[in-house]
Amino acid sequence: MNVIIAGFGTIGQSFVQLLMNHKEFLKKAYGMVTKVVAIVDSKGAAVSQRGLDLNLVMRCKREYGTVAKVPSVGYEMSFLEAIQSVEANVLIEATYTNLTNGEPGMTHILTALQLGLNVVTVNKGPLALAMPMLKEIAEHRKVALKFSGTVGGGLPVLAFARECAKGDKVVKVEGVLNGTTNYILTRMEDGLKFEEALIEAQEKGYAERDPTLDISGMDTACKLVILANEVLGNRVTLKDVRVEGIADIKPEDLKIAKNAGKTIRLIGVAEESEVFVKPLVIDQSDPLAVKYTYNAITLTLENSGRHTITGKGAGGRETATAIIRDLISIKERLVVT
Amino acid sequence: MNVIIAGFGTIGQSFVQLLMNHKEFLKKAYGMVTKVVAIVDSKGAAVSQRGLDLNLVMRCKREYGTVAKVPSVGYEMSFLEAIQSVEANVLIEATYTNLTNGEPGMTHILTALQLGLNVVTVNKGPLALAMPMLKEIAEHRKVALKFSGTVGGGLPVLAFARECAKGDKVVKVEGVLNGTTNYILTRMEDGLKFEEALIEAQEKGYAERDPTLDISGMDTACKLVILANEVLGNRVTLKDVRVEGIADIKPEDLKIAKNAGKTIRLIGVAEESEVFVKPLVIDQSDPLAVKYTYNAITLTLENSGRHTITGKGAGGRETATAIIRDLISIKERLVVT
Repeated sequence: MNVIIAGFGTIGQSFVQLLMNHKEFLKKAYGMVTKVVAIVDSKGAAVSQRGLDLNLVMRCKREYGTVAKVPSVGYEMSFLEAIQSVEANVLIEATYTNLTNGEPGMTHILTALQLGLNVVTVNKGPLALAMPMLKEIAEHRKVALKFSGTVGGGLPVLAFARECAKGDKVVKVEGVLNGTTNYILTRMEDGLKFEEALIEAQEKGYAERDPTLDISGMDTACKLVILANEVLGNRVTLKDVRVEGIADIKPEDLKIAKNAGKTIRLIGVAEESEVFVKPLVIDQSDPLAVKYTYNAITLTLENSGRHTITGKGAGGRETATAIIRDLISIKERLVVT
Repeated sequence: MNVIIAGFGTIGQSFVQLLMNHKEFLKKAYGMVTKVVAIVDSKGAAVSQRGLDLNLVMRCKREYGTVAKVPSVGYEMSFLEAIQSVEANVLIEATYTNLTNGEPGMTHILTALQLGLNVVTVNKGPLALAMPMLKEIAEHRKVALKFSGTVGGGLPVLAFARECAKGDKVVKVEGVLNGTTNYILTRMEDGLKFEEALIEAQEKGYAERDPTLDISGMDTACKLVILANEVLGNRVTLKDVRVEGIADIKPEDLKIAKNAGKTIRLIGVAEESEVFVKPLVIDQSDPLAVKYTYNAITLTLENSGRHTITGKGAGGRETATAIIRDLISIKERLVVT
C-alpha cells in the first residue's frame, strides 16, 4: 500500500514512528506492507516512488523543521506537485483544522478523491464543513473516506457504533467530545473559577494558547457533525448545529448541581430532528459524567438502551493508532475488491 | 437460516418476540430470514421443519407453561430427540447457568457442535467451565461459537475488543461485570449496610432471591473467563480464577474510600499472567467507577491506552439483541463460505 502524508506535525510524525515500530507486526498480523511515497509539510515535500527512508525523514524534520531538506528526495514542492509525481493508494490528511474554508485540507482531500485515492483524514475541518459532499464523491469514485482519528482520539467510536447497530438502530448520539472543556468543568466543580481552571489546563498542556475553538463549543460541534452523518445518517454540516460554549458557566452553577447529585458537562447531542452543543445538567451517575480530560460517547439504541464508550481524548499516539486502524480497513477492502 | 432454541425462559421468549417484531427489517437490512424449527423447554419441545408459528408458540407457552402443548407440533420430547428430528444451522442455547457441570447446556452445545451446527449461547456455565475445549471443537468442526450475550448484556464488548485491537494489542481487561453487586456497593456508599442494600436490590428486582452467585463474585468470574479467553487469548477456565466477593465489605470501608476521592468496586482483572476477581479501591474519576446496575469494561491497549465501554447490565431484551447480533455474524459467515 503506497501512502502520501499531507501535514507533518505531531500526529503525522507519531504515525510514522508507529509505522516504523510496528512494521513486522502489521505485516504478520494483517499482511500490511506500507510504503510512504511522499510526505508534504508547509515548506515542501519529500518524494520517492520506491518509498522514503523514514528514519532519515524524521531526522531531517527534527533538524531542519521541514522534509524539503531531506537529501536527494526533498524539494520545495507543493502538495499538488507531490501527489501528481507519485503513484499512491492512500492519502493521509493531517494538516491543521480550519473552520472557515477547510483549507488546505479540503483541496488535499478533494484532489485525492478525484485521482481515485483512498483518504484517511485526522483533520476535522473539511468534514465539519462538507461531509455529505465528500462522502458522495468518495462513493462515486468507489474509494474509502476514513476518519476514525477525528472523534474521540484513539477510541474506535465509529466502529463501535456500527457494531451496536447490527440488528438494532441508533436513535440518539450524545457526547463529551472535548477534553479541554471537560477538564475545566471538572476543576470548576472543585471550586476553581473559569479563568483559574483555564490557566491550569494551559499549564498542563490540555488547552492551547488560544482556546477559542474548545471553549466556544466549536470543536465539539465539528465532532458532532461527523457522528451525526456517520452514525445517524443525518446530512448535516457545521452550520446546522446550534452551538453554546462554557464561557458563561459559573462555579456556583456547578456547586448547585453538585449538591443535587448532578453535574454540568458540555454535551453534543444529535438526533434525527436536531443537532446541538450545550452545557447540560446531568446526573453524577450518568456515564457521560466523566472527569478531567476523558471523552465519552453515549449511543441510545432502539432495543438495547444506552451504551457508552469512554477514554482519554486525543493525543498524538492515540490518533496515530486510529490512522493505522483505518489503513487496516482499507487494506481489507482492497483485498476484497 | 434454521434455528433451534434450547431453553425458553425470559431470554428465549424475548428473542422470539424480537424476531417477530423485526422480521422485515432483518430481511431488508441483512438478507436474514430466520426459521425457528424447534424450541425445547424443560417439559418438551415444539418441532416443525417448515418453521414454527411463533405467535402460537408464545401463546401456548404463556397459557400452559410449556411448548410441549403447542397443537400438532408439541411433544414430550427431549432435546436430543428434537435436535435429531430437524435440519438446522444454528442452536441458540438459553438454559440456566449451572457451574457444577454446566448441564444441560453443556450437552446441548457439545451435541450441536458435533452435528455441525453453529452455536449461539447466552448461557455462561459451559463457557466458564470449558471454553478452551469448546472453542477447539467449534474450530475443528468449522462452525461458529458465539456468545455476545454472556458478557455485559446488550453491550457489544467482544466486538469492541476486536476493533480496538486492530493494529494494537490488548494487554489487560478489567471489568465491573455484575450489576447486582455494583448496585449494592453504590448504595453502601450512600450509607446503607450490606444487608439493607441487598434487600433493596432484591425488592427492585436487581438481585435474585438466592444472590450467592453474584455476591460471591462467581458470576463476575464466569464473565471474566470468557473475556480472558476471547480478548487476551488466555486458555483459562473458572478454576484458574482467584475469586473474592463483596460479603466482607463494610460501609466504613466505602466511607474511608469516599473521603479520599476513591470508591470500591468488585472488579474482574485479566492479564496474561493472572486472572482474579476482587473488591478494589479505585479513583472516583476512574471510568470503572460506574454506579447502580451499570456494567463497565476497560481494555488497556499497548499504544492507545485505556478504553472503556459502559451500559446497563443484562435484561431479557438486551440479551436478545445480542443473540440477533450473533446470528447476523453467522449469516455473514455462511454467505462468505
